[in-house]
Amino acid sequence: MNEIRKDYILDRWIIISPARSKRPHVFHRRDNAKAQHHTCPFCYGNEHLTPPEILRKPQDKKWKIRVVENKYPALVDNLEFKESVKKLLMKTTGYGKHLVIIDSPDHSKHPGFYSLSQWNLWFETLKDLVSMFMADENINYVFIFKNHGPEAGASLEHPHSQLIALPKVPFTIAEELSKASEYYQTEGRCIFCDIIEIERKIKKRVVVETDKVIAITPFAPRWPYEVWILPKHHTPSIYMRKTVQKDLLKVLRAVLRAYYELLEDPPFNFYFHMAYPRMKDHVSQSYHFHIEVFPRLERDAGFELGAGMNITTISPEKSAKELRNFIKGALK
Amino acid sequence: MNEIRKDYILDRWIIISPARSKRPHVFHRRDNAKAQHHTCPFCYGNEHLTPPEILRKPQDKKWKIRVVENKYPALVDNLEFKESVKKLLMKTTGYGKHLVIIDSPDHSKHPGFYSLSQWNLWFETLKDLVSMFMADENINYVFIFKNHGPEAGASLEHPHSQLIALPKVPFTIAEELSKASEYYQTEGRCIFCDIIEIERKIKKRVVVETDKVIAITPFAPRWPYEVWILPKHHTPSIYMRKTVQKDLLKVLRAVLRAYYELLEDPPFNFYFHMAYPRMKDHVSQSYHFHIEVFPRLERDAGFELGAGMNITTISPEKSAKELRNFIKGALK
Repeated sequence: MNEIRKDYILDRWIIISPARSKRPHVFHRRDNAKAQHHTCPFCYGNEHLTPPEILRKPQDKKWKIRVVENKYPALVDNLEFKESVKKLLMKTTGYGKHLVIIDSPDHSKHPGFYSLSQWNLWFETLKDLVSMFMADENINYVFIFKNHGPEAGASLEHPHSQLIALPKVPFTIAEELSKASEYYQTEGRCIFCDIIEIERKIKKRVVVETDKVIAITPFAPRWPYEVWILPKHHTPSIYMRKTVQKDLLKVLRAVLRAYYELLEDPPFNFYFHMAYPRMKDHVSQSYHFHIEVFPRLERDAGFELGAGMNITTISPEKSAKELRNFIKGALK
Repeated sequence: MNEIRKDYILDRWIIISPARSKRPHVFHRRDNAKAQHHTCPFCYGNEHLTPPEILRKPQDKKWKIRVVENKYPALVDNLEFKESVKKLLMKTTGYGKHLVIIDSPDHSKHPGFYSLSQWNLWFETLKDLVSMFMADENINYVFIFKNHGPEAGASLEHPHSQLIALPKVPFTIAEELSKASEYYQTEGRCIFCDIIEIERKIKKRVVVETDKVIAITPFAPRWPYEVWILPKHHTPSIYMRKTVQKDLLKVLRAVLRAYYELLEDPPFNFYFHMAYPRMKDHVSQSYHFHIEVFPRLERDAGFELGAGMNITTISPEKSAKELRNFIKGALK
C-alpha cells in the first residue's frame, strides 16, 4: 500500500509507491536508450488506452488537452487518509492524486513551438485542476511539473505534464515558505519582490523582461542555464491576471525554444513553486508564484545527493547572456 | 573564478566551477554510453598523468592507494578566502580542496571484492586526509563520497573516491546537525542512538548487525535498497576505534557485494555523514557518524528536484529482507 513517510531527522517526506515500479523503463536502465515502438496511449484514437479521463478541452473528439489519471500513481484517493505518529517514525497513508496532463495531441511537437493559445489552454486546465482539490481538507499542496526527455524522467515520449496533490507540503516548498515568511516578518516585504528589484537593478542575470513578467538566472543556480520566471507584481498562486498569464507563458515558451536551439533539444524539467490557496493568509503576502526551469545536462552524484550542494559549471551571468542574446527580439 | 554562493532564500549553497565543464563526458550526453579507450591515469605506470600527488600508501612503486588533486577541482586553495554579503546575495570565493582517492591499483576490480586490508588502508587514508585540514580555519567541513558507474556520476572507470573540503557546511549536513542538536536539547540523547535502539527492536529494517555496527534500510528512504551503516556505540566523527572501523568496512563491503550480485552491478553512490572535528563541542554529543549508500536505479525528475520529495518504488522492509537474505552468513 502507498505510504508517505517522514525522515527520522529531517522534515523531509518521501512517498512509497510499489505500483510505480511497473511503469516503463524503471529498473531496466540498460534498455533506456531503446526507442518506444508500441502504440502511444496519448495520441488521437487511443483514448481507450489511458486510465480514466478527468477532463478534456474542448469537449470534442478533436481535443487539444486531455487530463487522465496516472497509470502508476504515486498517491491515490481510494483509501482513507490516516496519520500515524510513533517516536521518530511518522507516516500517513498514501492519500492524494496523481494526474497526467496530455499537453497537446501532437506526439512529436516540441513545447517550445506550441501556439500561445495552446499554452493558454494548458494553463487554464491547470487552474481548473487546482480548484478541484480546494474542497478536500486532506490535500495541503498541489505540485505541478513537467519532465521532457528520458534523462529528465519522462517515461513516455508524447509531451505531458503532471500534477501531484498531497496531504503534506513537500520539503523544498516548506523550507521556502518558512524562509519567505521569516523575511516578511522582519522586512515587511515579499522576498521575491525584493529579488526582482535587485536583479532588475544589476541587470546581468536578467534573461528577458516584459511588462508583466521577468526571467532571470538565479544568483545561486543548481544547474547551468537554470531560469526562474516570475510575475513582476506580487502574485502568490496560480490564479493571476490574464495579462500576466499571457506574458508568463510567452516567456516560458521562449526559454524552452532557446534550450532547443542553443543546447540541441536537451532533456529538461520545470515546475511551479506557488502558494496553495488553502494556506494561511500570511502566505499570500510572503510567497510569490514562480516557475523554475533547467536543462538536464549533468547527473547528480554523491556530493549533490549527500551534501545537498550542487556544483554548476557555468555562471548564471554567462548563462543569462547566452539565453538573452538568443531570445532578444524573439518575443516580439 | 570559482565561487560559493547562497540561494536567495534557502540556506542552500552551491559551487560555481567553470573548470569542471572541461572534464570527460560533461555536456556530451549523447556520447555517454561510449567506452573509454584512452590510457587510464589511475593505473600503475601512468602516475605522471595525474595532477600532483598528495600521498600514497605504501610509499612505493607498488602503491595500494594514491591520493591526487582533482584535475577539475570544484574548489581550490590557491586563492584567498573572502566572504561578501550583500542583501540576498551572499557568496565566498571558491576556497577549499578537492581530492581524488584512487581506491586500488586494480582498474577493474569491484570494491565489493576488495580485501578487508585494502578497505582498511583506504579508511586510514581518509582519516589522514581529514586530519590535514584541521589546522585550516577556513575549512568548516570535509565531505567524503564515492561515485561508481557513469549513471552515478563517475567520469572515470577506475575505482576512486573523492573528498571536498569546504568553508561552508553543506545544506543537508547543516539541516541534519541542527535537527540532531534540537533533539539532543529536548531528549538528552543522540537521535541516531535512538534510531538504532528503535530499529533493533522492530527488526524488519535491519539488514545486518555485528558486535559494533548495524546496517538498516531507513524508515523513509529516498531510493530502493538505500542502506545506512552506523556504529552501534555513539561515534560522532571518522575517528573511531579500530574494532568499530573493521566492522564498518566489513559491512560496507557486504552491502556493495549484495548490490553487485542482486542488482547486476548497478551504479551506486555512498558518502559519509559525520561531525567535523572542528565543530562545537555539543555536536560530538548530538551527531553520529554514518554511511549512506544506494544503487542508482532511477532518475530524479521534476517532482524530486522541485519538491525535494522522493518517490520510492520498494518499501525499505522489502529491500531489507532481500539484502538480509543475501548477506546472511556472508559476513562469517
